[in-house]
Amino acid sequence: MEVINKYVTIKSPIDGVPKESDFELKNEPFSLLVKRGSKAIIIKNLYVSMDPYLVNLMKTKSTLGRGIAPGEVINSYGVGKVVASGNPRFSKGDYVVGNISWGEYSISKGFNLTKLDPMNLPLSYHIGVLGLSGLTAYAGFFDICKPKRGEKVKLLKEKLGFDEAFNYKEESDLNLALKRCFPNGIDIYFDNVGAEMLEAAISNMNLYGRVAVCGAISEYTDSGKHAKLDMLSVIYKRINIQGFITYDYMSLFPEFVSKTVDYIRMGKMHVLEDVSIGVESVPSAFVGVFHGNNVGKKIVKISDD
Amino acid sequence: MEVINKYVTIKSPIDGVPKESDFELKNEPFSLLVKRGSKAIIIKNLYVSMDPYLVNLMKTKSTLGRGIAPGEVINSYGVGKVVASGNPRFSKGDYVVGNISWGEYSISKGFNLTKLDPMNLPLSYHIGVLGLSGLTAYAGFFDICKPKRGEKVKLLKEKLGFDEAFNYKEESDLNLALKRCFPNGIDIYFDNVGAEMLEAAISNMNLYGRVAVCGAISEYTDSGKHAKLDMLSVIYKRINIQGFITYDYMSLFPEFVSKTVDYIRMGKMHVLEDVSIGVESVPSAFVGVFHGNNVGKKIVKISDD
Repeated sequence: MEVINKYVTIKSPIDGVPKESDFELKNEPFSLLVKRGSKAIIIKNLYVSMDPYLVNLMKTKSTLGRGIAPGEVINSYGVGKVVASGNPRFSKGDYVVGNISWGEYSISKGFNLTKLDPMNLPLSYHIGVLGLSGLTAYAGFFDICKPKRGEKVKLLKEKLGFDEAFNYKEESDLNLALKRCFPNGIDIYFDNVGAEMLEAAISNMNLYGRVAVCGAISEYTDSGKHAKLDMLSVIYKRINIQGFITYDYMSLFPEFVSKTVDYIRMGKMHVLEDVSIGVESVPSAFVGVFHGNNVGKKIVKISDD
Repeated sequence: MEVINKYVTIKSPIDGVPKESDFELKNEPFSLLVKRGSKAIIIKNLYVSMDPYLVNLMKTKSTLGRGIAPGEVINSYGVGKVVASGNPRFSKGDYVVGNISWGEYSISKGFNLTKLDPMNLPLSYHIGVLGLSGLTAYAGFFDICKPKRGEKVKLLKEKLGFDEAFNYKEESDLNLALKRCFPNGIDIYFDNVGAEMLEAAISNMNLYGRVAVCGAISEYTDSGKHAKLDMLSVIYKRINIQGFITYDYMSLFPEFVSKTVDYIRMGKMHVLEDVSIGVESVPSAFVGVFHGNNVGKKIVKISDD
């Protein structure tokens, strides 16, 4: 049984802000059968995640030590369904979550792949709110930032809403924006932006403020752009800055999923997703996150179940 | 009993690198007697510390929220001898360490002042190796950086010497200098310099590297100069950066002094001091630390015991 697998790849390394024309759709014959003796898993991809950090793997010189070559399949976090399996951990019909590809089908050795119980929730939830993005927020907030009594947690817990919000791309003075939204200063800052946003956060932090950093989207596409930290503030406010990678916190996954599912079911957590349809939409969906086009977790739905 | 007290002050706020001409010596009538009912302590100053952070108090807009006005007495860490006391905690003839002034005599209410047991060691030791500078190193290294087995600690313990050294002011490429001195990367970086030196340290750090920051001398005298941190390195290497102030660690003082005195007596710790003589030498001594003129802890000896 062979199909034509459509997948998205890069035409050449990307060193600035990615453009749709940096990507191309390729067609490749793809076998839906597992060879005798192979432990491969053949997956029909259903949803894939649009994660900005992937651009770091697409550069001429990857920051992460490994990179994506032009023409190559691009691995991505996603949800799929097993079509065939030579691996005893997975059977045909199983839902899986983890490392799949920006294409219609994936072939996996089972690394970074987990059998998924959808728990009567939309499959897409397992990419965003119940996936790596959710775990990033959970681990970063509870394990790195370690909120203390009084640090706005009560509000977060009781309302799970926001007090104030602003769009960092639309503020002419980020410092003033933060002073307006946080007149009593900031205890915890969860950074995914870097550069001027991080600088403004440091300026507005309180004594013993904590910064968890797991992304720096404004620095990904401009290698000369860096957060110019005011070290005098860091010193005198005893600020702690901790870089982290969500993969370090995989052991928290069961606890995180169980709590988050409860919150969703009780209606205490609202899920906001921004879904594009079809593998052809991957390039525009991915490029869009660098321009803030998405409202909520950006996902591409590759196929119906 | 009245004397003429010579003391050093600033002529006007200092916003760049301090120059000797920014300072002046003043003469002021000074009573060596404590008024009836007063709890004041009159101190003959013996040694004062030259600490670069003081320049932050001399700026037009002090970074620390309090500042030194032109003409005002400048407080400084130092060692002195009590001449007269209305305070029951101190008696005439006691040695004291703590907050005294850049002058020949100080008057104190006893805040940040401790009775000193010289322990048969040179009085100057109680400013540097056994004073706040020493505590800064001790607390920063053991409490903030938390060295682990294998992280070069054995060497520090057994030899208390250095493997490699370089002068950051004389290296054309700090990145290369660090690669040369630390071919296996850096686990712990104790920052007192900031800017390019901190940037190079971050570039050369290992996974889970820790940075303790309690000074940023290269940023004190240039308000536009900041460490441009590569947040991608901070994230992917899970680097932790912690600002701190030595005053937070005063509770460690007894433990620190007792261990350090043992090391000095066993000849396992070597003390390097750079001493200028006389209150008149304070301006050149202070200015000198910004040019790296000192070799060892910079101290001014105001008077013989």
